Amino acid sequence: MSRVRVHNFSISLDGFGTGEGLTVEVPFGHAGHRLHQWMFATRFWHDHGVVDMGDSVGSEGVDNAFAERFGPGIGAEIMGAGKFGPPGWQDDPDWRGWWGENPPFHTPTYVLTHRPRPPLEMEGGTTFHFLDTSPAEALAVAVEGAAGQDVRIGGGPTVVREFLAAGLIDHLHVVQVPILLGRGVRLWDGLEGLEAQYVVETASSPSGVTHITLTR
Amino acid sequence: MSRVRVHNFSISLDGFGTGEGLTVEVPFGHAGHRLHQWMFATRFWHDHGVVDMGDSVGSEGVDNAFAERFGPGIGAEIMGAGKFGPPGWQDDPDWRGWWGENPPFHTPTYVLTHRPRPPLEMEGGTTFHFLDTSPAEALAVAVEGAAGQDVRIGGGPTVVREFLAAGLIDHLHVVQVPILLGRGVRLWDGLEGLEAQYVVETASSPSGVTHITLTR
Repeated sequence: MSRVRVHNFSISLDGFGTGEGLTVEVPFGHAGHRLHQWMFATRFWHDHGVVDMGDSVGSEGVDNAFAERFGPGIGAEIMGAGKFGPPGWQDDPDWRGWWGENPPFHTPTYVLTHRPRPPLEMEGGTTFHFLDTSPAEALAVAVEGAAGQDVRIGGGPTVVREFLAAGLIDHLHVVQVPILLGRGVRLWDGLEGLEAQYVVETASSPSGVTHITLTR
Repeated sequence: MSRVRVHNFSISLDGFGTGEGLTVEVPFGHAGHRLHQWMFATRFWHDHGVVDMGDSVGSEGVDNAFAERFGPGIGAEIMGAGKFGPPGWQDDPDWRGWWGENPPFHTPTYVLTHRPRPPLEMEGGTTFHFLDTSPAEALAVAVEGAAGQDVRIGGGPTVVREFLAAGLIDHLHVVQVPILLGRGVRLWDGLEGLEAQYVVETASSPSGVTHITLTR
């Protein structure tokens, strides 16, 4: 049976999964890259060829071990409209996501939006499908698309929170970064008592971040 | 020179330092004892004789190491009105705090309240003084009272946040407990960028809590 997983979801010490003032230039608003710096230093990031690290292959400690769980066993992703593009991307018929022609998903990828459009077939196995539906219904479609593998919920914070509130997440990996953003979109709002449904573990890393996992 | 320290300040995963619905029966509201359970298991707590642990002297690992820093080197405490008593204690002339005749402070202890009353001399070295003043002015008084030792800011969350915002805290020890309270009073609100003034460390404990220290 497909499990539903969230990986590498970064939040600030004060709980914000993204900042304020999101635009095409600053996808995470005033948070900038600070929520994801921990990942840029890992072998996972190096192996995806996203940054030039010179001779280094990146770190292979606890941050990397968690980061590498992103891909294996995943057969589909669901993301919110706010992850697919900057505010207003629905008005741009040529918008094809942030990631160029070969996005890092390599599976069917379902974008939740109230203004769906025809599917976009990209290189490397990623096809974007656009759905105007509830979390539970989107998940049923994604499970079908995942063909027996697991489904990743890709964010942003509002979408992860909605799936958590609906009881649809089996494994949540949150990375708490020791910065105070002060404003933005919070992950944990309105989830009183959620921990009772999960085994919770925390592991702080020498990099300064803390990995928090909720697993059922 | 006196340093200003916060110890054993517990918050939930979603950042609440106390719950909702505080009364004389439930000082932390719907949070109950859940924010402090980690401390009840320590030798620190056992040595203060607060709970009967049978033959056990309590844990002596990382939770206890942090917990024991509460007392040594401290010459005064500042607390908010909300820590000294339940809502409305100011209307009860006989209210002498939650802690009985021998409170666990053993130093001059300054209670911030808009309705000050004469000092209360308790057993064991604790004297409660009541101040209607700003954080900076209260601190000046407490430093005097501490006679060369450090000053502890005892909470609640609003008071700690005010002292942080005013740049008055040198060392902050927060214990993040893996529960989601959903409501109450948040510690981190309105402190964007605060981490830049501190060295931040995190240490997760086998008990499930994560110790976060901000030190300058």
